[in-house]
Amino acid sequence: MDDRRPIRWESLGASDPADALAGREALWSWLARQLGMPALLATPPRAYSDIALPPVRLSSAHRASLAELVGPARLRDDDGRRAAHAGGHGYGGRIAIRAGDLSRAPDAVLYPRSEADVLAVLAYCSHHRIAVLPYGGGASVAVRPASAFAGTVALDLAMMDRLLALDRVSGLATIEAGMRGAALDKQLAEYGLTFGHVPQSLESSTLGGWIAHHGCGDGDAAGWLAQLRVATPKGLLTCGHVPSGAGPDLKHLMLGSDGAFGVITAATVRLRATPAAQSFPCWLFPDFAAGLALVRQAVRDGIPHAMLRLSDGEETRLMRAFQTMGRFSLSGGLTDLYRRVRGFDDKAALLVTNLAGSETQTRAARKRLGMLARRAGAIALGERPGWRDDRLGAPDLQQTLLDHAMGIDTLEMAGSWSKLPSLYVATRAALDRAMRAHAPRPGAHGLVMTHVGHAYPDGASLRFTILFPRKLDGEIPQWEAIRRAGIDAMVRAGVSHPRETGEAHPLGREVLAAVKRSLDPEGILNPGKLAPPA
Amino acid sequence: MDDRRPIRWESLGASDPADALAGREALWSWLARQLGMPALLATPPRAYSDIALPPVRLSSAHRASLAELVGPARLRDDDGRRAAHAGGHGYGGRIAIRAGDLSRAPDAVLYPRSEADVLAVLAYCSHHRIAVLPYGGGASVAVRPASAFAGTVALDLAMMDRLLALDRVSGLATIEAGMRGAALDKQLAEYGLTFGHVPQSLESSTLGGWIAHHGCGDGDAAGWLAQLRVATPKGLLTCGHVPSGAGPDLKHLMLGSDGAFGVITAATVRLRATPAAQSFPCWLFPDFAAGLALVRQAVRDGIPHAMLRLSDGEETRLMRAFQTMGRFSLSGGLTDLYRRVRGFDDKAALLVTNLAGSETQTRAARKRLGMLARRAGAIALGERPGWRDDRLGAPDLQQTLLDHAMGIDTLEMAGSWSKLPSLYVATRAALDRAMRAHAPRPGAHGLVMTHVGHAYPDGASLRFTILFPRKLDGEIPQWEAIRRAGIDAMVRAGVSHPRETGEAHPLGREVLAAVKRSLDPEGILNPGKLAPPA
Repeated sequence: MDDRRPIRWESLGASDPADALAGREALWSWLARQLGMPALLATPPRAYSDIALPPVRLSSAHRASLAELVGPARLRDDDGRRAAHAGGHGYGGRIAIRAGDLSRAPDAVLYPRSEADVLAVLAYCSHHRIAVLPYGGGASVAVRPASAFAGTVALDLAMMDRLLALDRVSGLATIEAGMRGAALDKQLAEYGLTFGHVPQSLESSTLGGWIAHHGCGDGDAAGWLAQLRVATPKGLLTCGHVPSGAGPDLKHLMLGSDGAFGVITAATVRLRATPAAQSFPCWLFPDFAAGLALVRQAVRDGIPHAMLRLSDGEETRLMRAFQTMGRFSLSGGLTDLYRRVRGFDDKAALLVTNLAGSETQTRAARKRLGMLARRAGAIALGERPGWRDDRLGAPDLQQTLLDHAMGIDTLEMAGSWSKLPSLYVATRAALDRAMRAHAPRPGAHGLVMTHVGHAYPDGASLRFTILFPRKLDGEIPQWEAIRRAGIDAMVRAGVSHPRETGEAHPLGREVLAAVKRSLDPEGILNPGKLAPPA
Repeated sequence: MDDRRPIRWESLGASDPADALAGREALWSWLARQLGMPALLATPPRAYSDIALPPVRLSSAHRASLAELVGPARLRDDDGRRAAHAGGHGYGGRIAIRAGDLSRAPDAVLYPRSEADVLAVLAYCSHHRIAVLPYGGGASVAVRPASAFAGTVALDLAMMDRLLALDRVSGLATIEAGMRGAALDKQLAEYGLTFGHVPQSLESSTLGGWIAHHGCGDGDAAGWLAQLRVATPKGLLTCGHVPSGAGPDLKHLMLGSDGAFGVITAATVRLRATPAAQSFPCWLFPDFAAGLALVRQAVRDGIPHAMLRLSDGEETRLMRAFQTMGRFSLSGGLTDLYRRVRGFDDKAALLVTNLAGSETQTRAARKRLGMLARRAGAIALGERPGWRDDRLGAPDLQQTLLDHAMGIDTLEMAGSWSKLPSLYVATRAALDRAMRAHAPRPGAHGLVMTHVGHAYPDGASLRFTILFPRKLDGEIPQWEAIRRAGIDAMVRAGVSHPRETGEAHPLGREVLAAVKRSLDPEGILNPGKLAPPA
């Protein structure tokens, strides 16, 4: 079940948030000043026991039938379980729940143990028009099903987390979709293999979730996903070819399908050998543009890397502040460096890398990167293995910020190298303007931190982290306005489909709706997702 | 138009076949012996002027309207043009045409000059139920449209072959779908860029064709295809994100769609810089298994390469024979080598490579490959740049073989490394048995040559070339039986979907049919392709 780890009820899937930044008063005061606020209120979440759950609509006959399908012990409908499945980790869902909105709570939570269980549940629910919300690590926001349904069940894949098959010669593993990132790499390490795409912030999310939401940390599941098994109300769909094949490959339709076409039950993924050598050289660039030019050069030259993460000036500055003022640490060094190097100011941009491969490859990559960095005027910071994790995005830190009247969210977009600089400037400016316009008091504002998430030969993805004082009497509209401003700026600047918009081409939406009808004719799966065109 | 190069009317798109192997009597006698035949008859194709074309069903009113849409000079319905568009280059189509079957000839051939032309034609034809056969390089076999249609037109993209946009910073080119491989690399070379996926045998095929038929030489278009524009009867569909994005990416649905969903009008593709250094080292391995092990190691180690082509013993032996007995040349050396090296017999397997990158990368790759090859007992053959082309698959050679009572066809499949050896053995044996069982006379048989086309970290594709004496009184059934035997063997040996079967998962077929209905509700595009389930 999902109770194997202690969790805060409203921060499902997060690691223990106990200490993070709690009690770092210097940091809170500093942050308040940065946001133009006199102080930051304590805004702890409400306990779920103080919040009313919506009435159960699932009839006792349906409940009994579903309990029989998965086994009585694997249908749960106690308040705690329903509350814990009431929403995902998206900012909107999290804020709503903290504010006492549990209206999205399902009538019951089912824990299937096998693909056969899932198929049986879907067939039953399709026949009886019961809405089904597939649930992996909890990152997906459940949509409130229309009253047209005879009830709503969450289908939690926590018990489907086995390694089903391992082909060491080919480097392929077939894994159940409920396996979490942390368990995945741990199991594979025993065989000298690694999946190698999971940043720490995603350790609690699941393989099925990465596929349904278009990639894990790696941005693009198409590269590592070989085959897929998807349970639908119409039966099992197997897709994917090894490694290439005939006709359109339907596995790509499942990437980003948000659980609206079926429930991913297992996937065959490509593995790498655990690298013989790793290196974590870091550099500080005079500014973001200089760092961007280097990252572009590195990927176009094919320098092998597991990570190249470039933070802009603002993100670098904030990381430094968190290091100075909290126990949250970047293993030292950055502050000293600023003191030593007079020429660098708040525009300085940090590049954190992970080079991995054979001894020879890693050494050559490091040498070549070093040469390019020196040419770009960067300062070498040496090996910093501790800097590899995406700590600012960690769920525990986010919860602690939410507890202090701040909002934190991220927007991600991808662009070609030629468009990236203008996309960066335009999106940052729009987010900044929107946070000022929707601040809780005059003069208050937010912070926009940016880093390059994944770089490709033709472009890169940028991840914007926004930190802002919440307007406690209207925080959902505030957040929606800020977010919309960012997305609109991205679209105006030439991103055809930023990850966040969910707005496909109109004709494309018709195609997706046709696919939906062919696999889920009653529309029971995640109602409202991938909706047909109006 | 498509008459810019001299072509044999029944070998559309092929380069001039004039001399190839004609007159090499020693080779023909040797080949006859290899196939267990007393001699090989001359079987030249019939002239199209001796063959009856089917009557035109397109009304003169429709003809006039279509001529107006594309411009009168760009609708052609003379006999030669209709005959030249009567079928593709697939073996079945080619044999049928040589034998005098022009029943698939369209009523007219349209040459649109723009996406707007294509959209207008599709809208008109959908409204009036006129079947449309998209035509690129001519490799696709047109399906005979049912009589339910008010006529059939081929839509030849030969005039849509412009480079629309070039983003040198990002390495992205937007190109019209009718551009041929040869022209593509020639135009890009002027900018120091290369597409780098087109073997010589595909120079006359088009960008749109590679996408519609799931990749060009590279086996997998997903890697190089960034964005796509597809004209459908319902309007224009744009798809693809740069480089990652939101929701399911519909561009993957177009890969392998065989023109049944729409007409690809333009694509944005990823380019590479013209490599600073290239190297073409070749090796001879004691047998295919030893070569396979090396190729697997090389791709798993991430040795950068543009080509690693490993031929099995039979293909290596045949290449040597063609070199000895015809003017068709492998630039010398292989025969001498066999004489020098006593330990190598007919099982020896040739590895031809193309390493490309920076000077340092290419040197390192060559060094590492050389070390692995030595360990595997291979003999270095030195640099052989002339060996890079897929000459046995070249259209001109195929035509010459067809002129001499032989059939030549290829089957391709992909498998994981762990399954590849058994797939190879089983498929070879099945093809051999079938060619014996369906030979034109007792004791006659065929030859099966195999090479690794493309290798990936998790597996590789194998391309089987079969050469057999044709049963002139029943050559289509003979070919179908041989082909079916090979495909059945692949499926039994564990390839879920060999490229050749066209048999998707039953539920997957329903999904594809739903997509088809949403984009082409009247079913005018390539009728019979991606047919709905029975």
